[in-house]
Amino acid sequence: MTHREAIGVDVGGTTIKFGIVRDDGTVRGHHALPTEAERGPEGVLDRIARGIGTLLETPHHSISGIGLGVPGVINNSGEVCYPPNFPGWEVVPVADRLGAILGTELPIAVENDANAAAFAEAHAGSGHGAGSFLYITLGTGVGGCIIHGGRIWRGEAGGAGEVGHISVDMNGHPCNCGSRGCVEAYIGQRYMTAIAAERLRTNAGSRLHLMMAHGAALSPELIDRAADAGDAFARRFLEEMGEILGAALASALNMLDFHLVIAGGGMARSAWLLDAAHCSMRSRVLRSIGNRAELRTARFGNDAGIIGAGLMTLIEF
Amino acid sequence: MTHREAIGVDVGGTTIKFGIVRDDGTVRGHHALPTEAERGPEGVLDRIARGIGTLLETPHHSISGIGLGVPGVINNSGEVCYPPNFPGWEVVPVADRLGAILGTELPIAVENDANAAAFAEAHAGSGHGAGSFLYITLGTGVGGCIIHGGRIWRGEAGGAGEVGHISVDMNGHPCNCGSRGCVEAYIGQRYMTAIAAERLRTNAGSRLHLMMAHGAALSPELIDRAADAGDAFARRFLEEMGEILGAALASALNMLDFHLVIAGGGMARSAWLLDAAHCSMRSRVLRSIGNRAELRTARFGNDAGIIGAGLMTLIEF
Repeated sequence: MTHREAIGVDVGGTTIKFGIVRDDGTVRGHHALPTEAERGPEGVLDRIARGIGTLLETPHHSISGIGLGVPGVINNSGEVCYPPNFPGWEVVPVADRLGAILGTELPIAVENDANAAAFAEAHAGSGHGAGSFLYITLGTGVGGCIIHGGRIWRGEAGGAGEVGHISVDMNGHPCNCGSRGCVEAYIGQRYMTAIAAERLRTNAGSRLHLMMAHGAALSPELIDRAADAGDAFARRFLEEMGEILGAALASALNMLDFHLVIAGGGMARSAWLLDAAHCSMRSRVLRSIGNRAELRTARFGNDAGIIGAGLMTLIEF
Repeated sequence: MTHREAIGVDVGGTTIKFGIVRDDGTVRGHHALPTEAERGPEGVLDRIARGIGTLLETPHHSISGIGLGVPGVINNSGEVCYPPNFPGWEVVPVADRLGAILGTELPIAVENDANAAAFAEAHAGSGHGAGSFLYITLGTGVGGCIIHGGRIWRGEAGGAGEVGHISVDMNGHPCNCGSRGCVEAYIGQRYMTAIAAERLRTNAGSRLHLMMAHGAALSPELIDRAADAGDAFARRFLEEMGEILGAALASALNMLDFHLVIAGGGMARSAWLLDAAHCSMRSRVLRSIGNRAELRTARFGNDAGIIGAGLMTLIEF
């Protein structure tokens, strides 16, 4: 059986990752270039073109398209709008510009990076066969994407799925977005670290103090390692964070009448966080959804963006 | 100009309302029958058929279909599932059964009652031309419906749009659904009345005490009348409730990337509640939506269900 192939590109704030993606979700020809975002859109587009050029020169059966996952909102014309941490970018028609630089006739698809990762889960990952689910990323921020009938559901202007800014406590922690109690203001990497640091002041017995004394920086991942190693503070803390996440997910599922959530990003590997979130979500969601509600870990890790970007050009949807 | 017409039926827990609906959203031939839900599905279906029969016997140009708005979730096969306060109903194929009783060839459409009202707003009311918006009903409960591209967006199993069960405080008021802090647990008629009654114990100066001493029953509408008459307690109370509603709406808009909310139901007429909700919603929603976020009052009042039900059979969507 021969597989169809496409080039997938994951454009991150520090690194651009490239690979040749097959329609079964496997990747070959991985490579990466530094983004050097400070060089502005022209510089970044040149790098993307160079990385794609390298793959086009390697032996391949037949590349049928190029897909890119990029931060920021993609508007209804396919333009990338104000990607965070990309100085000088406003509204950039990435597909047109890349096509011109590469001089290629291949179709070029551009999608928000979280949406691309969700698309990978929908068609070759943990959401395969599910049709509809809510995808969330647990990383620096808490992002999301609504997949409905195998397609990305974009809302009115392309930005749907902002699970991170569901508030679980309207008078709670201030969030960078200007609101209060957003789930991102607890579970987002920086916020979670800050809340844990504050709590550790009055939890002198936690193993985390020792780990930090040995040079480890406090982070959600470090807290997860401490929980794995038996630290009671770390376990309680992640359970509390999971309960918050589950409350936000219950609100989201009630709105969408979905029963499946797929979690990607670094902290989706934390069983302490995810088990508590699953439990909290199921106990809070409407009974009509309740017994079917499920929170799954994403199949793809660091490659999710490359895979989803490539698959977008391979799969009819 | 001649208008196309359809029969619209709004099946409520105590009354079934009937009318002939034109494609511009006007209604003629209004009449109503008591539901007598205690007689079970057969009794209710007979009443619906009798009410429709009366309209079919009145002079009309050309009735092109029959639409019904019914409580409960309508599944993907068009069956009515477990409508609350309808004893003996489980999963009832209302359209098929009515067609058989009436012996008619007219198309019969069945939709959830809140969805039917939202459809009326989309095609002949406050959402006309908007394409996508979130519809909410402020009544006994807090219901909702997602309209996307002029169509009802049903989610996975037909129950999408449950705005009432977005939690604004995960540790807040217990809600009848089993969760905590749902917006319905504050703004729903019974809940709002109970919270106000509790607060009035320590607000002896409120005009509401006098109104109740004269025989008026405490209700959201009474509180609104007191606010209109200058009562400071009532104003503060409705502003607080509006702030809660706005917080839930901000979470919903962030998820959907919508900018418009249309509010129907009795309390949507309260400017005290709605102005505060509008303000709270705008201050909490993501900046990418913020300056466009809008909360409008529905055009249709008690007739919304009849109109939406009728329009469903008149409008291609």
